[in-house]
Amino acid sequence: MKNFDINEDPHRRFNPLLNEWVLVSPHRAKRPWQGQNETIATEALPKYDSTCYLCPGNVRANGVSNPKYDSSFVFENDFAAMKQEEIIFEEDIKHTFFKAKPEQGISRVVCFSPRHDLTLPEMDLDGIENIIRTWQKEYTDLGSIKYINHVQIFENKGSVMGCSNPHPHGQIWAQSSLPTQVEKTHHSLKSYFDKNKRTLLEDYLQAELRSGSRIVIENDDFVALVPFWAIWPYETMILSRRAISKITDFTEQEVSSYAKILKQLTIKYDNLFSTSFPYSSGIHQAPTDGLEHPEWHFHMHFYPPLLRSATVKKFMVGYEMLGESQRDITPEKSAEILRQQPDVHYKSKAT
Amino acid sequence: MKNFDINEDPHRRFNPLLNEWVLVSPHRAKRPWQGQNETIATEALPKYDSTCYLCPGNVRANGVSNPKYDSSFVFENDFAAMKQEEIIFEEDIKHTFFKAKPEQGISRVVCFSPRHDLTLPEMDLDGIENIIRTWQKEYTDLGSIKYINHVQIFENKGSVMGCSNPHPHGQIWAQSSLPTQVEKTHHSLKSYFDKNKRTLLEDYLQAELRSGSRIVIENDDFVALVPFWAIWPYETMILSRRAISKITDFTEQEVSSYAKILKQLTIKYDNLFSTSFPYSSGIHQAPTDGLEHPEWHFHMHFYPPLLRSATVKKFMVGYEMLGESQRDITPEKSAEILRQQPDVHYKSKAT
Ligand SMILES: O=P(O)(O)O[C@H]1O[C@H](CO)[C@@H](O)[C@H](O)[C@H]1O
Ligand SMILES: O=P(O)(O)O[C@H]1O[C@H](CO)[C@@H](O)[C@H](O)[C@H]1O
Repeated sequence: MKNFDINEDPHRRFNPLLNEWVLVSPHRAKRPWQGQNETIATEALPKYDSTCYLCPGNVRANGVSNPKYDSSFVFENDFAAMKQEEIIFEEDIKHTFFKAKPEQGISRVVCFSPRHDLTLPEMDLDGIENIIRTWQKEYTDLGSIKYINHVQIFENKGSVMGCSNPHPHGQIWAQSSLPTQVEKTHHSLKSYFDKNKRTLLEDYLQAELRSGSRIVIENDDFVALVPFWAIWPYETMILSRRAISKITDFTEQEVSSYAKILKQLTIKYDNLFSTSFPYSSGIHQAPTDGLEHPEWHFHMHFYPPLLRSATVKKFMVGYEMLGESQRDITPEKSAEILRQQPDVHYKSKAT
Repeated sequence: MKNFDINEDPHRRFNPLLNEWVLVSPHRAKRPWQGQNETIATEALPKYDSTCYLCPGNVRANGVSNPKYDSSFVFENDFAAMKQEEIIFEEDIKHTFFKAKPEQGISRVVCFSPRHDLTLPEMDLDGIENIIRTWQKEYTDLGSIKYINHVQIFENKGSVMGCSNPHPHGQIWAQSSLPTQVEKTHHSLKSYFDKNKRTLLEDYLQAELRSGSRIVIENDDFVALVPFWAIWPYETMILSRRAISKITDFTEQEVSSYAKILKQLTIKYDNLFSTSFPYSSGIHQAPTDGLEHPEWHFHMHFYPPLLRSATVKKFMVGYEMLGESQRDITPEKSAEILRQQPDVHYKSKAT
């Protein structure tokens, strides 16, 4: 029998946003790897690729040409997962086991830059601010459509994350229902706010700032940290310092601070394994149901799969799918490693 | 406005085991794929590989030699995610956000066969029955340890599922707590049973048998089907016809029927894309907390990632991680395709 040491002993941690536990195995970080290695694209990309369906002026699969855009560019997803059409539906209450209902939605693609070869960490701050303004506009436009109650802004980066085109872009899926993970988060945020009259993430952020051990980057308006309950090896969350419920409530200064922390975090990510770091990222913010949401606190999740190198990722498989998410390296260790990464991109020679 | 057609219109389906919704986009199955292709091992494997740490007689990383086993063989995982050591722990109740507690557990590896080159669908029924008996023994042995309340039996098959060794094997992670997914399932099964005095899966199975559209295989004692709420393209579930709560309650005939359906299902999987079909599979059954669990109904999940071919998988990324699981092909269509697969393995020339 020994006393519990969170840095060494297997343990479970609680995620108060999703209301679930995570298994942490700190001692396991050193097991040898004989499994699959990811292939990484290493050739330098051209600034413009005539075969890319996202580059300015090119023709997409449906025959439509992209404009010669010079900042960001948004279009409807040609293969959307949802449709805008309204569907008539009478719920069959007898179906205990076969419960289904139509879902209305809109999917858009957001090209981050006309340049085929730039990713977020390599873009300049003006370019990143411009993406943020595009997200604001889309959140407003889509959110104001009567049947749209949730706007999910996200990015899949890298082929290992199912991204089929290296041209820098993200997506927006807007829909009638709150998606499962958002619904869970909503529930947690609301219970906490109703009880404490402060947002859960406002209080969590204060606790993290007091501890310091999981903080990666701080600026005047945002903090990037590895959540205490992170499941991916280098998972992070960007939180606004103010309890702002949505991206459209940002001040001009917050837009600029958000651009800075996005650039700094993704530079650290790229520097970690000297590779264009793959991840899925996305913003969680207030539903667009027309109600006030003081319980919501703007945050952005980064879920990157790499574990040991540019080619070895963490597999969320067997035990994770059937049991629960499991991680080897501790969040504190990951935060320390990320913190130590330089703030200058490994590819840039000068500055 | 049109009337809802579940075979064509985007919709959400409800999973009563996990108590969450899934997004289904039937119309999206035909979008072109330009993304990552998986590499598949195509060379024939030797019956014995002197460099394999699972083959009989070979030495493992920790210096221990495997016995010259001739059926199945179980050993403690050399890099276990949990430890058996008891940890002294005083809960710090002040920590609203940093909730953690030590977890005790045992991880074992189960080699399915001394043959390096055989997978489940290629093994004979005696060999598969032998694996089932090994699972029974492990469930009993591990389950009878005082601090073990849950025994998770699972298999990661194929390098795309993080499996680092093609030698046929599964794992068992036994631990003090009910893992997150099991806890959720437990909650659903218990509420249903308390209300209806029948298991949820007993009634669900009857509904599926009446419908017929998602059934893949039936035999005297088991049914394999694509759940109404499946998220993976060819996800299936094997259910016992009787409401049996655990693998140790199987009759001799049920052991034999279970072996048959396991072989038949995995043959269909291999035949689907003429490849050794990757998946994570695992058994969900009663906790080993010493209590009666009439609400539990033995079932086995298969979560296979392939979508269109041996090299193109479904990526559960961005929207799925931040929002909710999304699928293109409908469960009904997948069941039909699986049903149509021959019951003879594509590699076997005769028989
Ligand atoms: O135990 P293995 O086979 O080394 O590891 C594999 O299965 C484990 C249990 O599902 C996962 O935690 C690992 O990420 C995966 O690589
Ligand atoms: O929309 P894309 O980029 O074609 O597709 C990618 O992102 C989607 C949203 O996360 C996923 O559903 C797909 O599995 C993935 O391949």
